[in-house]
Amino acid sequence: MDQTVTSGKGTVSAEVCSRIDQFYAMQMQALDDGDIAAWVDTFTDDGVFVSNGLPDPVEGRGALTELGGAAVARLDEKGAIRRHFVFNVIVEPAAGGVLRTTCYVPVFDTVDGVTTLTTSTVMRDELVGSEAGLLVRHRTVTRDDLLAKTGPGSAA
Amino acid sequence: MDQTVTSGKGTVSAEVCSRIDQFYAMQMQALDDGDIAAWVDTFTDDGVFVSNGLPDPVEGRGALTELGGAAVARLDEKGAIRRHFVFNVIVEPAAGGVLRTTCYVPVFDTVDGVTTLTTSTVMRDELVGSEAGLLVRHRTVTRDDLLAKTGPGSAA
Amino acid sequence: MDQTVTSGKGTVSAEVCSRIDQFYAMQMQALDDGDIAAWVDTFTDDGVFVSNGLPDPVEGRGALTELGGAAVARLDEKGAIRRHFVFNVIVEPAAGGVLRTTCYVPVFDTVDGVTTLTTSTVMRDELVGSEAGLLVRHRTVTRDDLLAKTGPGSAA
Repeated sequence: MDQTVTSGKGTVSAEVCSRIDQFYAMQMQALDDGDIAAWVDTFTDDGVFVSNGLPDPVEGRGALTELGGAAVARLDEKGAIRRHFVFNVIVEPAAGGVLRTTCYVPVFDTVDGVTTLTTSTVMRDELVGSEAGLLVRHRTVTRDDLLAKTGPGSAA
Repeated sequence: MDQTVTSGKGTVSAEVCSRIDQFYAMQMQALDDGDIAAWVDTFTDDGVFVSNGLPDPVEGRGALTELGGAAVARLDEKGAIRRHFVFNVIVEPAAGGVLRTTCYVPVFDTVDGVTTLTTSTVMRDELVGSEAGLLVRHRTVTRDDLLAKTGPGSAA
Repeated sequence: MDQTVTSGKGTVSAEVCSRIDQFYAMQMQALDDGDIAAWVDTFTDDGVFVSNGLPDPVEGRGALTELGGAAVARLDEKGAIRRHFVFNVIVEPAAGGVLRTTCYVPVFDTVDGVTTLTTSTVMRDELVGSEAGLLVRHRTVTRDDLLAKTGPGSAA
């Protein structure tokens, strides 16, 4: 159980997993602190951000800066403190040194002293290495609250 | 602090802890995706699942398949998307290569666009190694919402 | 990506990160189990606990025992089961072998079968090594619900 294998889900080394955990912790805290410049620096120059909460994919650091800035402005207007938690990170090595991850990211907002769960999301990333560390090349966010699941509950 | 010791709580190597984190991430995502065959494959043939939410222990892959299938059917009927988050994983090596874990697993459901915390649970596992990776030999789930804690609140 | 560097955020080894994760899991579960003696043993003799929910810093194991005991008594009176989840742990090595961490710690309470998010906090620690393992030398907890964020929401 102490050997590191190099392909398949959940088979990368502890060192790589730990680096990914740290990367996400820093990336999410930068975003939640409103430090959009630091957040954008965690993407590649041509990084893509796709979400079922957005009409179109957002591509490149300029567009990501606008996206992040608009989110911070909306939260400031509401007086909301937002926290993104990253969990259950599955890591899968792909061709060309890319690391594919699938994580759960619930989002909590505190407004006027009350903290509520805003949404639960699944985040799928393609991460690449760089001299500065890991970077997101492609991110797909799926918000559970925008998914239509067929059932009596949703049909009501 | 960089040495790995081999007994006592919290003393297994980073490699083993990382493997356990990945195992839980994959196991929970399989369950939440409704892939019961993949979920059942994370237990030993005679794996046992005990919960204070169930009348009796569930034992063996056949019974686990029924348990998982029934859970998926109930969620589908409600139109609910369920997410299990695994946190605060304590790992303790036991005799015969068994790894005992104690984790917190809150459960969130999204129905009709609204995500709510359904319950907070404590999960205690006995994990064993196999050629296919880790497997659950015995699991005990304790749902906080079913625990009676004596106090004015609960006595009301 | 498999090399371990020794300065800067997110650059400590997987072994150290894993040890910190295990430390927090054990520390929080001790607290949530009401085992205040075990919880206090995770601080240095002169450990300091600062919170924006407390009028003054709490210093030393005697005062920490009182703080923890009072918290347990309050929860028992309400019949509440409390869970502290630790996420998004950023680790940064500092002078003298100190490890600085910044984590998210949401707090969930279950009362009369209903689990609610009580508060979302950011925890900033200075951890030091000892023969018994890691210890908290200084902790600062910031509760989001007590932060005033200027905005139309909070100005209402």
